[in-house]
Order: sequence, then structure tokens, then C-alpha cells
Amino acid sequence: MLRVAICGGSGYAGGELIRLLSSHPHVKITAVTSEKSEGKAVGDLFPHLSNHSNLTYEPLNKEKLVDMADIFFMALPHAASQEAVDFFFRQNKKIIDLSADYRLRSPEIYEEWYKTPHRFRATLKKAVYGLPELYRKKISKASLIANPGCYPTGAILGLYPIVRMKLIDADSIIVDSISGTTGAGRTADIGFSYCEVNEGIKAYSVASHRHTPEIEQELSATAGKAIRINFTPHIAPYDRGILTTIYARLKKKAETLRILGLYKKLYAKEPFVRILAEGKFPNVKHVRGTNMCEIGLTVNKRTGNLIIVTTIDNLMKGASGQAVHNMNIMMGFDEKAAIRTIALFP
Amino acid sequence: MLRVAICGGSGYAGGELIRLLSSHPHVKITAVTSEKSEGKAVGDLFPHLSNHSNLTYEPLNKEKLVDMADIFFMALPHAASQEAVDFFFRQNKKIIDLSADYRLRSPEIYEEWYKTPHRFRATLKKAVYGLPELYRKKISKASLIANPGCYPTGAILGLYPIVRMKLIDADSIIVDSISGTTGAGRTADIGFSYCEVNEGIKAYSVASHRHTPEIEQELSATAGKAIRINFTPHIAPYDRGILTTIYARLKKKAETLRILGLYKKLYAKEPFVRILAEGKFPNVKHVRGTNMCEIGLTVNKRTGNLIIVTTIDNLMKGASGQAVHNMNIMMGFDEKAAIRTIALFP
Amino acid sequence: MLRVAICGGSGYAGGELIRLLSSHPHVKITAVTSEKSEGKAVGDLFPHLSNHSNLTYEPLNKEKLVDMADIFFMALPHAASQEAVDFFFRQNKKIIDLSADYRLRSPEIYEEWYKTPHRFRATLKKAVYGLPELYRKKISKASLIANPGCYPTGAILGLYPIVRMKLIDADSIIVDSISGTTGAGRTADIGFSYCEVNEGIKAYSVASHRHTPEIEQELSATAGKAIRINFTPHIAPYDRGILTTIYARLKKKAETLRILGLYKKLYAKEPFVRILAEGKFPNVKHVRGTNMCEIGLTVNKRTGNLIIVTTIDNLMKGASGQAVHNMNIMMGFDEKAAIRTIALFP
Amino acid sequence: MLRVAICGGSGYAGGELIRLLSSHPHVKITAVTSEKSEGKAVGDLFPHLSNHSNLTYEPLNKEKLVDMADIFFMALPHAASQEAVDFFFRQNKKIIDLSADYRLRSPEIYEEWYKTPHRFRATLKKAVYGLPELYRKKISKASLIANPGCYPTGAILGLYPIVRMKLIDADSIIVDSISGTTGAGRTADIGFSYCEVNEGIKAYSVASHRHTPEIEQELSATAGKAIRINFTPHIAPYDRGILTTIYARLKKKAETLRILGLYKKLYAKEPFVRILAEGKFPNVKHVRGTNMCEIGLTVNKRTGNLIIVTTIDNLMKGASGQAVHNMNIMMGFDEKAAIRTIALFP
Repeated sequence: MLRVAICGGSGYAGGELIRLLSSHPHVKITAVTSEKSEGKAVGDLFPHLSNHSNLTYEPLNKEKLVDMADIFFMALPHAASQEAVDFFFRQNKKIIDLSADYRLRSPEIYEEWYKTPHRFRATLKKAVYGLPELYRKKISKASLIANPGCYPTGAILGLYPIVRMKLIDADSIIVDSISGTTGAGRTADIGFSYCEVNEGIKAYSVASHRHTPEIEQELSATAGKAIRINFTPHIAPYDRGILTTIYARLKKKAETLRILGLYKKLYAKEPFVRILAEGKFPNVKHVRGTNMCEIGLTVNKRTGNLIIVTTIDNLMKGASGQAVHNMNIMMGFDEKAAIRTIALFP
Repeated sequence: MLRVAICGGSGYAGGELIRLLSSHPHVKITAVTSEKSEGKAVGDLFPHLSNHSNLTYEPLNKEKLVDMADIFFMALPHAASQEAVDFFFRQNKKIIDLSADYRLRSPEIYEEWYKTPHRFRATLKKAVYGLPELYRKKISKASLIANPGCYPTGAILGLYPIVRMKLIDADSIIVDSISGTTGAGRTADIGFSYCEVNEGIKAYSVASHRHTPEIEQELSATAGKAIRINFTPHIAPYDRGILTTIYARLKKKAETLRILGLYKKLYAKEPFVRILAEGKFPNVKHVRGTNMCEIGLTVNKRTGNLIIVTTIDNLMKGASGQAVHNMNIMMGFDEKAAIRTIALFP
Repeated sequence: MLRVAICGGSGYAGGELIRLLSSHPHVKITAVTSEKSEGKAVGDLFPHLSNHSNLTYEPLNKEKLVDMADIFFMALPHAASQEAVDFFFRQNKKIIDLSADYRLRSPEIYEEWYKTPHRFRATLKKAVYGLPELYRKKISKASLIANPGCYPTGAILGLYPIVRMKLIDADSIIVDSISGTTGAGRTADIGFSYCEVNEGIKAYSVASHRHTPEIEQELSATAGKAIRINFTPHIAPYDRGILTTIYARLKKKAETLRILGLYKKLYAKEPFVRILAEGKFPNVKHVRGTNMCEIGLTVNKRTGNLIIVTTIDNLMKGASGQAVHNMNIMMGFDEKAAIRTIALFP
Repeated sequence: MLRVAICGGSGYAGGELIRLLSSHPHVKITAVTSEKSEGKAVGDLFPHLSNHSNLTYEPLNKEKLVDMADIFFMALPHAASQEAVDFFFRQNKKIIDLSADYRLRSPEIYEEWYKTPHRFRATLKKAVYGLPELYRKKISKASLIANPGCYPTGAILGLYPIVRMKLIDADSIIVDSISGTTGAGRTADIGFSYCEVNEGIKAYSVASHRHTPEIEQELSATAGKAIRINFTPHIAPYDRGILTTIYARLKKKAETLRILGLYKKLYAKEPFVRILAEGKFPNVKHVRGTNMCEIGLTVNKRTGNLIIVTTIDNLMKGASGQAVHNMNIMMGFDEKAAIRTIALFP
């Protein structure tokens, strides 16, 4: 059995990792850390895991942990992850980092958006961006995976085929996303208390969200030239799921069916991407609890724009599910192990 | 007291009209119609109105109704409204039509989108589009008001200043809206049953929603040239409110504060538009139960786009509240009569 | 105009007081306090009040405030209210205390349940329990009103007629309540964050909730003998409203219609109690935003129990609406002033 | 592989059966029926099952189906199930009936509550009530299982130990339940449309719900004497889960810990019952998507009542999960096969 440690296991992504890895046939969780919840049982923080985990939270003592696990899932806050990742990497451990610290290949862009310098540039260079649909081969050989952000996962998967095919004007991309409230994390903040979120909807971080450069990085790499996008996230009153509506101007007229065909072909072998039939658009409700990304699209013939809608479960394909997928690829396991779930509907 | 009849009073817009008009100081509801609910009391369909209305639903008998009221609020389904509106109009009654039948000035465009011909073109020519911020003077003299659609209200109010000022590329407009589920009406449809809507979010009528030509009509009239937009509505799990996020490319660089200043100036005397301070964006929760449209905006300096976010309560400013506002203007009442409510929060 | 101060104006009850009193024809709010939010505008904490209040939060400086207002609404946490209420009372001010500090007539019972002594017993003796349906006359002459708790309001109004008529076994009473999440207050607590409350339901303070002695006090006073009840509150995923289901064993057989008749007679002149027809039961959705208590009931002929269901809006009839009602009675205003609202549905 | 047919596969219980059985290691679904949806693919009605089932709905042709499957899951409406169950039973098939038709051992009581006679009394006598915690041995030998109702499952499991131990007054039992809206089925009914359910809560079928005799039957059988209960169901705005709060008067004083001990002992070997520690009460959110029943309880020392709170997922332990559990027992499979899931939280 592969020994797994989860660093930062008291948030929603951490809880989801425990849930998934508890059912994984080749894995055993040997440690889970949380400074605040030191000494508490996993079931104290997550009653739904009471029957499934006997672990107790411990502080993140790197020297002690390094001998306890073969692979480290890092679910620490941004910036806090930098050093711990570097430490385990230098100890030749495998690492899947769910924070943003190793996603941006440019330390300058990282510092610009995260307002803190990147202090481990050598390690940063070794990180592989963990979006299997784009980087499966690199992931399979990597030791350090930068697990993608939730919004970028839905946005990049929706845009990758047409950017790669150069079918759209690169300066026309609008990414408009709606996220469930788990996206805000498990947090004691009045702004995310039930009565403030319920029956409301709002945009936030308009034109300034930190996932913007991550989306741009991958689109630019795909296009072979710098791409800038407009990205607006919204928060909505439901638990799980991100729906992303993407707008881009087609360079020339195209039929919906032809573009759908390109998407189907490009993602044909992907276990976690599903292209919907013409006229169908996805609903976050149908991917809840799964690692699936669903994509529907249409050409707006009146305006010449392409409109793409994607859905993911932000805690699964947008975080912990994708992290497990990355581990499965890295370790040569069945890619679907522990993440072949069917959505819980309703 | 002005005698008011409500034709089509069993849906959510009808219920909201009864609620509002019951508190209006100068108005008395004399009849409310519904074919399906003939003979039932208003309180049978709307228990919250039990103590506030003694009316019983009756069939829409035009010949009888014409003598019972001075002004007619028409909340019938699209197409069904055409003839009844024409009848009351020819009887020299005042009419506020909440359906789409008299909103599009071109009968050809109406037929294209609503798949039925417009059979009352002479009357159609007399209709005034009831958006007070654009047409107050015409409304004050009109007999027939085409009350705007819910999405168009939020979209047009958000775009009107910059389209009028010619600050943006007219072919770059994206209108992305999220609506609460009251927008679907009071309907026995599995697709809008609780468990299908709850914990989900989806786009619908992508690139094909009937409110598209209505938004385009008003933006084109403002710009003095034909404008086409991309419009995508979404449905989300809450009762009331539409949030609209608008994207448009600025012709040249501009400061957020300057554009906010233009909005504040243009809407300075409007009782039902509120421009938020720089860095603030609205939440549908703060306009619930009110006739207010709130607007926040920012320039995205990295891309040169302007991003505008507007919120309304779709049953109030997006339907019945605006209808009452139009009546107040037509009759010379205090514009805020019966609609000066403060939002119910939370 | 009556000058009103609100002490503790940053929570939901405080916000609701500002909303209601802003529309009151005979009242002017002159001060609103909050230690934490000192210097902030009301609209900063409550965007929905931005256009309706120019007040700024100030600290609770009793000596300063005493000259600023004629009547004081106290919405402070329990225990914190004791001293401030006593101070204003001794200054011959009128006070409506929304905390629990002056509700229990016995200081011993207060200390037993609130774990702190009552230090102002002389003032406590002067307090009138502000449930207008039971104590209207006393309220009209009182200077100090102890505004009832949210659960007690719905429970007492549901039980008062049958306890008074001695129709039930006094030791058989079960009070089972379900509250919306505003009942927890405006609080930064992970347990009340959106994702923890949403899609869940739970009981809390089982057999130990502090509203128990308050309900027992009023039922005992009505019965003329000590009554103990079983009370279980639950928290559910919606904003506003308490539904209370009450079970009690009838001393002898009775018809539902006869008991309904007793209720209708007893509450015949009450503007804020509505008895539903036989076979009908209330829904919190139909009293949202109103000061109404709705009551439905049935005799279970198979078991000989009476089952009563009541609904209120916990922020209105369960807190701020009832406080305004009490003020209206104390000051001789129209009882419905500022609280004659129709429910916002849906 | 065991061949399984699902008769009535278009509702929520049917969809849940398809979801669960698709992951079962020893089972293959060979047919799924629906008259209304004949010819449609499972994925048309349940997009979340698109990738997991290639089946097409067919009409319930008994003669054809009998050769297609070894075991029949019947998820038909009440009364409609009677004849089909009888047919398959006489053909020596195994049947798990999720309807109420074979739950009540007395055909007279069935007719009294369901307003239709039971026409297959011989078959009715062979039915075993499929609550594994009470009838595991009988289930293992049975051919026809009457799968328990959702409310009865939570109520009986909560009451069984104390009724069996004769610790409570049998005439004092109150069962108060709150159900998520999936309990109403997948239905096009305005009363269960999103905006009517959301932000509301109500009691229904007060003192008259059809699950009452089912609960009474099992409690009476356990007690060895007739027991009548008061049962009130409520519907609340969330998808899945039933919370049941039970009140009963203790015959003599008892400690909470001692009673918890009895529960733990009685259910010690049950894979799908979890007794919470003293002071803890369950939340439906923590059993969502699982087959677990969680139970918390406390003695109210002030009144001498015992208060028990239980939670289940109504589509799992309250319907399809329990049906699969019954199949596992009947067929000698691992009891947890296909239902060992961890709750999806949040």
C-alpha cells in the first residue's frame, strides 16, 4: 500500500481527500495535519468520516512526516505551501500541491498576483501543472504536481480545443464563472455565513481574481502566444460545482456540429471529460460528487461568437478528485481508482 | 380611487401586482382574472394575500371588464395578450402590458422570435416601451405601456450610459445573466420542481433567448445604429433577483471613476437606480422586494474591457414594480407610491 | 416625532428595527450603537439600508444617549443588557428590551438558565412581558417591556387558548420548533456558515434550550399552576421563520371545529394572529416579512391528542416587529403602524 | 451475475436504484420500465447516469420481463404494485417491493389507509417487512420483501430498543419528522415547484399520514400489544434526508448514558446504524448518499421524557439503499456491497 500524508486536512478539500483516499484500493492514509485542530479526531471535524477514519490531526512536523509517507497531498493556504513542498521535494518524496504556489511557472507573475515572492525557484521549475488532459505524460513522470485551481480547470478544458485549433480571436475571450460556496473554503467569515449567501448572488474579485494568470498561462502555452482574458467569478447559493460560460469570437463562420466534433475527437480517450450533444448544456447538479467535466457549446450565428459552457464539481475535478487522478497517473494505478463515482442526484 | 383590473392574476407577477396595489393609496383593484382558477379566492392561490384581498378570480370577459376598471394590468402569456390589449386600447382604457406582445416595435422581429404574427400593428405603433429611465416623458402621455422584460431591464440600464456616450465597441457586447427561479413563472413543470433546481445551476436558451431582440432594440435606438449582442441567461437556486454581468470593449482607455461619474450623473434623479461606489458590486439579496436597480462597474485595465454588474428583483423592477412605477407616471401619482419598500434582508 | 435609539444595531434584529422604524410615520431614529462597528455607516453593514439611513454606529455611551432619545430599543446580547436597561429605566426613559434579561420574572430561574445573576431585581419587577395578545393593557402603561423570545412567541400563542380553557393535560405538552438560520444571529461561526447549514437539518439544545423557562412561565401563569414542557428546537436551511408543532393530550374528546372556534373567538380582535380554516396548516413562507402569527390545528381522533402548528417570522413577530408593535401600544399609535406589511412571496 | 429488473425506474427511487446497482459487483440490470418514458434512454431522464447505463425504458410487460431477470425491484406507485408483485411472486421470482402494497400485514388496515382493497392476500402473507435490523433472518430466506417506508425506517429504528425493553409508556409516543423534498417524488406539481418549497417549511398530512399504521404495526409487534402514535411529517427546503424527533415518557427515571448503552448493544453488529455519543445529535447532512441511520438521544430530567433524534437519507436507507441491502441479505452477498459509500459533505 502506498503511504499517503495529507498536510492541511481540516478544510473542505482536505475532507474530500480523506473521503476519496479512504476508498482507494492501493492507498493508506498515514497522517493528516492541522495546526488548529491538533489532537482532534477526523470525525470531530467531519462527522461523516467518523466511521471511515481513525486518524487524529497532528501539527505539520516535516521532519517527522517525511518518514511516514511516500506521497504528500498539500492542502495548505497559498504561500504557506511553498516551503513545505520544497522540503518534501528535496527529500525525494512525491507531492501533489493543491495550493497555487507551484502553478504559475513565472515567479514574477506569481509575486504580482499573490503579493509574496516565490522563494523556491529551482523547485518551481520542476513542478508539472496537473491537468491530465493537457499534461498526462509529464504527470506520469513527475515528482511534484501543481494541482490546478478550480476555475482554471473548467475554463481551460472549455477553451483548450479551440485555442489549440486557432479558431478564435485570442483577444476576445470572456470567462464568466459561477461557483458554489464550498469554493470559499471552510471559514468563519460573516460574508459566507448562511443568511448572507442564501437567496443572493454576487460577482467578486471582478477583473482581479488570482486564477486569471493561471488560465492565461495555459491558454498562452497552447496558443504559442500571450493571451489575456476577462474573468469574472460569481458566488451562488449551493454547495458544490462551478459552471463556466465562455464567450469567444470565431475567426470565421463555423457550424456547431463541426466544433463539437473537434471537441469529441480531442477528448475522446479522456475518462473525465464528457461532450454533450448539440443543443444540450450541462448543469452542475449532474457532476456533483464526480470527477467529470461536462461541456456543451453552440455557435451564435447572429454574432459570430462561440459560447461554451462547462461544469465541474469544484471539490472533485476542481481540487481533490483531480489530485487523486494525478496520483493515479503518477503511480501507474487505474486512472479511475477511487474517483469513478456517479453523481448524487438529486 | 383609480379602478384597476388585473388580467392574468394567478402567476407570480399577478400576485405581486395584487400585493403592491393593495397598499397603493390611490388605487382600488376591482377585478382579477384567471381562466383556470375561476371562482377561487385570491387567498386560495396566494395564502399570503388572504387578509389583504377579498377578490375572486373571474374569466377574462372583456366586455364585462371594460366597465369595471380605468386601467388594465395585463399579465397574460405572450401571444395571448395581443387581442385583449388591442380591445381595451380601442375602448380608450389605459393599459400596462407585462407580456412581450407590444415590446418589439417591429412586427417582423416579433414574429421571428415569438413564432406568431402580430395582428394589431396599428395598436403596436401606439405602445410606449415602459422603461422610465429612458422614456419617462412618453410614458406620462401614453395609454399603452409595454412593460419591459426582466432581463432587458437589468441589461439596458447597465448599458444605456456607455452606449449613449459611444464609449464602447458596439459589436463587443456580452450580456450574461443569472436569474432566480421565479423567472420561470408559477408552473407545474418537473424541470422547475424543487429537487431539479436546488443545488444546480445551468444556462438555457443559449444564443436564442427571446429577450435578445428587446435588448438590441433599445441599445440600437440609443446608439443610432444596429447593435447585436450575445446574451446568455442562467437559472439559479434562489427565488428572486437577476444579476447581469456585462462585458464591452472600451474604444479607448478610461478610468473607472470617470465612468462611474457618468453613470451617476445620467441617473442622478432616478428614484430606482443606484450607482455603487468604486470597488463595490451589487448582490440580488440587497434589492429583494424593491424596485431598485443597483449598478457597479470597473474597467479591466489589463484587457481594456468595461465590466458592469447590475441587479434587480425580477418580480419588482423586472415586472410588477416597474408596472406600478409606469402607472404612477401615467397618472401623475408620486412615482414611489406603493413601491418605496426597503429590501427584506436577509 | 418620537426620538428612538437602537442599542445594539449591527445584528439582524437591529437591522430589522432600522428597516421598520425608517418607515414609521411618528418616529425618528436618532442613534444606533455598536462597539465593533463604531464609525461605520449603517449602509456599510446593511447595504439594503444605504438609501434609507444616514446614521453612523456609535459606542453605547449611556450618559450621552440618554438625552438623545425618548425610547430605547435594546438589542444587546443576553446579560449585557441588564445594566443598560436599568440605567435608562432609572432615567425615566421608555425601554423595549429584545434580550432575555427582563423576561423571566424569577431572578433565580434567570440565573439557573443564563448562568449569571440578575443584579437589578427592583427594575426586573417593573418589566412587562411584551406579548400584546396576553398583556396589551399592561404594555400600554409600561415603561419597560421585555420583548418575548422568538420560540416562546410561536409556542405561547399556540398554547394559550387551550391552557386557559384547561382542555389539555398540562404535563403532556411537547413543543417542537424549526427555525430559519437568522435565528442564530449575524455571526462568524463555522457552524453557521453556508455550506454547513445548507442541505442539512439538526436539533440543538435538546431538553436544554433557554427559551424553555420562558414558555413555561407564561403557560404556568395562564394555567394558574406550574407547567413543564418538552421543547426541542431545530435549525433548517432557510432565512426567516419559525414553525412550531405542538402536541398535547386532550382531557376529553373534542371536535377540531369547536377548538378552532375557541381560538378564533379568543383572538378575534388581534391584528397579528390568524386562525386557519379546518384542514389548513401554515407555512413560514406566507408570513415572511410580516408581524403575523398563523395557527392551524387538528384533533387526532385516534390518539386523543391535539396538534397545533404555528408560524411566525422570527425577526418580525419573533423580535423586531413585535418590538415595534409594543412601542405602538405604549405610545398610543396605530398598532399596525410600520408593521402592516404583506408577506413577500415567493 | 444476478439479473435485475427495475419496474418503475423513472422516479427518484428508481434513479437511485440504477445508480447503486450500476456499481454492484454481482449484479447486472437487464431491464428498466416506465410507461411514460418508453423508448427514452436512462440518460435522457437522468443525465448523471448517461455514462453509466445504456438501458432504454420499456413498458412493464410482465410476460416478457419474467424471463429477463432473477430479481425484481418494484418502484411503482402504491396500489399499482399489487398485481405485478403477485405475478412475479407466483413465477418464483425474488421481489423487493418499494411501494407500500405489501408492508401492512393486515389487509383491512391497508384498505383503511390506502382506500383500495388488497386483492392478493395469499401473497401478502408471504411478504417479509424488509427492515434488516429487525428481520435479517427472515429476509435471508424470503422471496418477497416489502421494503419499508422512509419515515417508518427512521421512526422504528429510533423506537425499537426502548419499546422492546418496555422502558416507556406506550401511549405517549410522538413522532415528529422533517423530510427533504425528494420525499415527494419526481413530480410536476406546483406545490413542489422550486419557489413554493424554497424558504418555506410546513406540516402536511397532520394526524393522517399513511406511514402511521406502518410504524404502529412494527412497534406493536415489538411491544406485544397495540401501540398508537402521533405522527407529523414536515417538508423542508433541501433535497435528501429525514430527521425524526421522537418523544416518549419514561416509565421510571433513567440515565441518558444507560439508555445509550442499550442502543449501542442492541445495534452493535449493525453495519448501517450508528449511535452517537452523549450530547451529540445527528444532522441529515452527514448521512447524505449513505445507507446509514444515525441516532442521538437524551433524557429530559425535568419532564421524565426521552427524546430521540434519528437521521437517514430517504432515498438510501429510506428506499433504494435499504432495498439493495435487502437484496444483499437475500442473495448472501456482502451486506455492504454497493452501499458502503461515505456521505458527500458538504
